[in-house]
Amino acid sequence: MSKFTPVDPVELTAALVRCPSVTPADAGAQDILYDLLSEAGFTCAWAERGGIRNLFARWGSQGNTRSFGFNGHTDVVPIGDEAAWSMPPFGAEIKDGIMYGRGTTDMKSGVAAFAAAAVDFVKTTPPDGSIVITITGDEEGDAIDGTTALLEYMENNGERMDVCLVGEPTCPNTMGEMIKIGRRGSMTIKFRVVGKQGHSAYPHRANNPLPAMMRLMDRLASHELDTGTDHFDASTLAVVTVDTGNPASNVIPAECAATVNIRFNDSHSGASLSEWIENEVAAIREAFGVQIETQVKISGESFITPPGDLSSMVAGAVEAVTGVAPELSTTGGTSDARFVKSHCPVVEFGLVGQSMHQVDEHVRVEHIEQLKTIYTRILQDYFA
Amino acid sequence: MSKFTPVDPVELTAALVRCPSVTPADAGAQDILYDLLSEAGFTCAWAERGGIRNLFARWGSQGNTRSFGFNGHTDVVPIGDEAAWSMPPFGAEIKDGIMYGRGTTDMKSGVAAFAAAAVDFVKTTPPDGSIVITITGDEEGDAIDGTTALLEYMENNGERMDVCLVGEPTCPNTMGEMIKIGRRGSMTIKFRVVGKQGHSAYPHRANNPLPAMMRLMDRLASHELDTGTDHFDASTLAVVTVDTGNPASNVIPAECAATVNIRFNDSHSGASLSEWIENEVAAIREAFGVQIETQVKISGESFITPPGDLSSMVAGAVEAVTGVAPELSTTGGTSDARFVKSHCPVVEFGLVGQSMHQVDEHVRVEHIEQLKTIYTRILQDYFA
Repeated sequence: MSKFTPVDPVELTAALVRCPSVTPADAGAQDILYDLLSEAGFTCAWAERGGIRNLFARWGSQGNTRSFGFNGHTDVVPIGDEAAWSMPPFGAEIKDGIMYGRGTTDMKSGVAAFAAAAVDFVKTTPPDGSIVITITGDEEGDAIDGTTALLEYMENNGERMDVCLVGEPTCPNTMGEMIKIGRRGSMTIKFRVVGKQGHSAYPHRANNPLPAMMRLMDRLASHELDTGTDHFDASTLAVVTVDTGNPASNVIPAECAATVNIRFNDSHSGASLSEWIENEVAAIREAFGVQIETQVKISGESFITPPGDLSSMVAGAVEAVTGVAPELSTTGGTSDARFVKSHCPVVEFGLVGQSMHQVDEHVRVEHIEQLKTIYTRILQDYFA
Repeated sequence: MSKFTPVDPVELTAALVRCPSVTPADAGAQDILYDLLSEAGFTCAWAERGGIRNLFARWGSQGNTRSFGFNGHTDVVPIGDEAAWSMPPFGAEIKDGIMYGRGTTDMKSGVAAFAAAAVDFVKTTPPDGSIVITITGDEEGDAIDGTTALLEYMENNGERMDVCLVGEPTCPNTMGEMIKIGRRGSMTIKFRVVGKQGHSAYPHRANNPLPAMMRLMDRLASHELDTGTDHFDASTLAVVTVDTGNPASNVIPAECAATVNIRFNDSHSGASLSEWIENEVAAIREAFGVQIETQVKISGESFITPPGDLSSMVAGAVEAVTGVAPELSTTGGTSDARFVKSHCPVVEFGLVGQSMHQVDEHVRVEHIEQLKTIYTRILQDYFA
């Protein structure tokens, strides 16, 4: 038997960062993980859909009693203005204990930490159960051919996770301070109000769509959706754009467009909010005599894994390693946990996310090591 | 003494239309009038400003007791898509009693009619008084170097009109149906609301300018400015454009712009409306904690020449010639009467304006002749 050498999560992160896997490109990142996991005895398979390659890996037999899952992504957002970076965006260079590069925070270090933890764990203390690792290449893009494709693959092939940890960055400022146990839902509504064009001097011959749009947006924006629930902050509604594009002050425009984004908690659903909006629209349509079209896109319903065994176990591991008792939170944007939640209980824990999506994205090297230690401890506790 | 030959207003209109005087070009149009009026004994002078040539012409001595004025313009709006015209836009071709071409309605026929009327009148029945004709080449453009330059020239040179008739098209559908005795004022206000950009998932960290803009525009648009005055319809306010230009539904924008146009009667002034708007803006600024900048442009104050001797005389001449009793109106957009009103009482009367600024602009030839007859009758009555 060869001597055991632990996987260095920092080197693994650097190797992944050096693959310029700007969504939907993969650039070799998943091959690195495929090779690492196969070598450690994981059964690996590609769950491909829509030109996206997603990696499914399982250690242990399919029929095992207990199956712990990790989920993450290797695609990254674009680098933006390369000239604005002070370090090469795909260099993974380390300076003063900090590694720089696109994906260092979101979330190649998270993937590297749980892959390294899992490989070392199965090699040193083979558990009585399975470890499933799912890695998508479509989280930062439309997210329609990523984790959902992996879950479909699992469904079709009799694979399962009993619980799942998504390794996204979850800590606002300090390592260990936040675990996410759910997320708000998100929906986007596009509005188009159509009236009748005319001359500003003769408004009675026209039907200006703008007053109707102003009243509608004012009503939506000033409505209190709720004041929060047990595990969620209050839902929020943001009017993100209103546009007409009429350059002539003596012309009343024919139409106007607007977009509204809602982040909602578990006291609403995409359907209940759609109904509320249609009622508001109907009242404005009636009052102003205009046409109003709406187009609703629900990116994700709200979900919660109520505080319990899974969150207690993860929180315990975090506190044991960092000394910080993490808050169980449901704040923030969406993540692939919104898909995993239909498969099994899911929580998210990862690094400090401050620099994600920004120029000079970076991670503290010691945090990558800490994260591997936390993930290892979670595996130990789960299979204990 | 040579035999008297009347000026044919149709031929004169055609000659003017054949000069492609798309604002600010003159293309020889004013030379035609200069020559015609000089030959008839008018003292002619150019009132030039900003590269625009404007024609001042006076028949009779400067010190005469009575001075009747005509005002008009020879510049025209662009032809637009030439291929869409069924007749040459500068051809002045006549078909079935209708002359086609840019400026046939607005307002080379009006200029031709009053120039022809004035020339014949001074030749056949020289009045005990003066006739002043002012022709600008900058009415359809910015109108800053046209009639205002002519009025400045008159002020500097001791010239005056006691009353003035502007020959713009004033009749909506039927020849003779409308005289304009005033115009509403017009002002345009540009608004810029500035908040703080952020992520739609964290609206409490941003300050969305859109709710403030929606509330402000709703308040302005739903406010009743007045219900009309003795000679004016109710003032109107039109929100003509609201724009943000934010393509990302997960981003709260930093700012938003809007433009409002107000057409106001004599119960308001540009200053009183500016004050009202600043008060509304201050309330919104306070309530929403945003910055709001405004930029006000007053194109013209409202004005009225109250019904009296001048309007009665013009109305009498119109009815005698057309059989139609004209309405005294203050509707419609702006005209150079807004400048003349500071010099002397002013009314406007001219052709049916339906095809002005359109493709295949045209005029009924008999209307040009009728208009000359009306203007002649007005001169006869004024100097009787």
